Amino acid sequence: MLKFEEYVEAVSQAIAAIEYPTSPAALYSPIAYTMDLGGKRLRPVLTLMACDAFGGDYRRAMNQAIGIELYHNFTLLHDDVMDKADVRRGKPTVHVRWNDNTAILSGDAMLTMAGQYVARTDARHIAAAIELFNTTAMEVYEGQQYDMDFESRFSVSENEYIEMIRLKTSVLLGCACKMGAIIADASADDAAMIYDYGMNLGVAFQLQDDILDVYGDPATFGKEIGGDIMNNKKTFMLINAINRANDNELEELKYWINAENPDRNAKVAAVTGLYSHLGVREIAEQAMNDYNDRALGIIAHSKLSDEAKRSFHDFANMLMHRKK
Amino acid sequence: MLKFEEYVEAVSQAIAAIEYPTSPAALYSPIAYTMDLGGKRLRPVLTLMACDAFGGDYRRAMNQAIGIELYHNFTLLHDDVMDKADVRRGKPTVHVRWNDNTAILSGDAMLTMAGQYVARTDARHIAAAIELFNTTAMEVYEGQQYDMDFESRFSVSENEYIEMIRLKTSVLLGCACKMGAIIADASADDAAMIYDYGMNLGVAFQLQDDILDVYGDPATFGKEIGGDIMNNKKTFMLINAINRANDNELEELKYWINAENPDRNAKVAAVTGLYSHLGVREIAEQAMNDYNDRALGIIAHSKLSDEAKRSFHDFANMLMHRKK
Repeated sequence: MLKFEEYVEAVSQAIAAIEYPTSPAALYSPIAYTMDLGGKRLRPVLTLMACDAFGGDYRRAMNQAIGIELYHNFTLLHDDVMDKADVRRGKPTVHVRWNDNTAILSGDAMLTMAGQYVARTDARHIAAAIELFNTTAMEVYEGQQYDMDFESRFSVSENEYIEMIRLKTSVLLGCACKMGAIIADASADDAAMIYDYGMNLGVAFQLQDDILDVYGDPATFGKEIGGDIMNNKKTFMLINAINRANDNELEELKYWINAENPDRNAKVAAVTGLYSHLGVREIAEQAMNDYNDRALGIIAHSKLSDEAKRSFHDFANMLMHRKK
Repeated sequence: MLKFEEYVEAVSQAIAAIEYPTSPAALYSPIAYTMDLGGKRLRPVLTLMACDAFGGDYRRAMNQAIGIELYHNFTLLHDDVMDKADVRRGKPTVHVRWNDNTAILSGDAMLTMAGQYVARTDARHIAAAIELFNTTAMEVYEGQQYDMDFESRFSVSENEYIEMIRLKTSVLLGCACKMGAIIADASADDAAMIYDYGMNLGVAFQLQDDILDVYGDPATFGKEIGGDIMNNKKTFMLINAINRANDNELEELKYWINAENPDRNAKVAAVTGLYSHLGVREIAEQAMNDYNDRALGIIAHSKLSDEAKRSFHDFANMLMHRKK
């Protein structure tokens, strides 16, 4: 197997080599722009790693890896329209740089392109690859819809939240892993095992995202701290804060949630103070570590080679020590 | 082969039998709502007809027929967001009845569902079915993008316009025909032949749409006459009017195109008057008949059975005599 950085390099080269039609420019330029913004390329790397780990050759899974990365970036593109987000990876989002209609239409094209890449494999694997991809995509929309539903509810249970992020974020990491296993002709048990690794890692990853948004280092986080707090996002931390707050603390939370145009620094400081006081950072970190441990346990108990075990172990550790 | 009405009935039953997940309701209700609005079901009927015509059994192509109809309705759903259209088939559009974000997300889910239906076939046909579907989908986005590009241009050539509607509208009718041929194991030549029939018919169909929007009977057209004129849409008629107008007529056209909040009746009457005066109705009808004749010629010269020839002939005639 390759080193993480070598897989990233292979993915980056393949993405840079994508040939987009030149016309109509307004359709394809936003797709190239989005794919060239970069990102950690975690999902395609998982696909290549899984393919190698089960005795395939990662190059055989490259089309599927690109398809999954195209899909991931399509979801970001449409999410940014829905969230009216202006900046992504330090650059203007597509609907800001172009407009809403261009963002909708080029996103649609990106979703179809993703399906085209996933389908580019031999006749033996196409049905399973397409089925996994489409099923996962439907789950991601469901997760996104639950996330939007939660915005208009004050109270959301911890279980509802975990199920939401499982659908919105984690199944795509599970899919990325399983896709590589399918191309490598892994057994159904092995494919299910590596899916579970990716899914549990994905939950830990999203919980960490929630934590970094509040407690990340502004110097390395890459975006402004406190974005979720300002948007009243029902994160794992806000949900636990609501569930653990006494009457006075609940009043204070509601005050900030309902405040119209509050001072950013004041709101972020007040809500972060409540989080720290209520111990929700520790609860979130505990939950994150639990899911990460589950992912590591799945790998440790698998029949993978020692080299493959080390690769998936290191991948999880690398993820859990990220600063952005 | 069945009669047209029998194919429509079979499609309607299959669409009514689609089981949508119940949760999250805000994701799936708009899809069911859109599919239940009705419509002529022309594309899925073409798929079933082509399957029967090449010796298959139309029931084997039903999943692909549904997939293509889901795709068509997905494009309408997202087009209505982009065009800010409030009414579709006499009912509020999804982004009006729900909101823009719901329309974007449920449209995305509808596109993935379309791919799921297309992929539901035996291992022998899946690669060709998926490839045709995805290629066509990309062409439809390209056509939609050219249509949007034309909005900000005063002058568009007739050839550019025909290429735009070929992509935006006609290739999906070609795809619908070829999809049935693929499932029926038709030869590559036969599949290409029936694709060309569908595509030429599609161009005639879109030209007729342009004509009906101006000269349709308000009592039977189903929507307000003159919508394209009010939106300054670069239709075949406006393009020919611009190209044939003398200086005075061009001034009058520009006056109405640039008028802010013009009286609807006045604008529609004035532009329609110019069209009639410049003879562009006849030009459009001639072009429509030319494309329809090409479609009929392809069928007449094919090796299809007499029964199949009659079915595709009658389908085209039925389409060309529609009032809405």
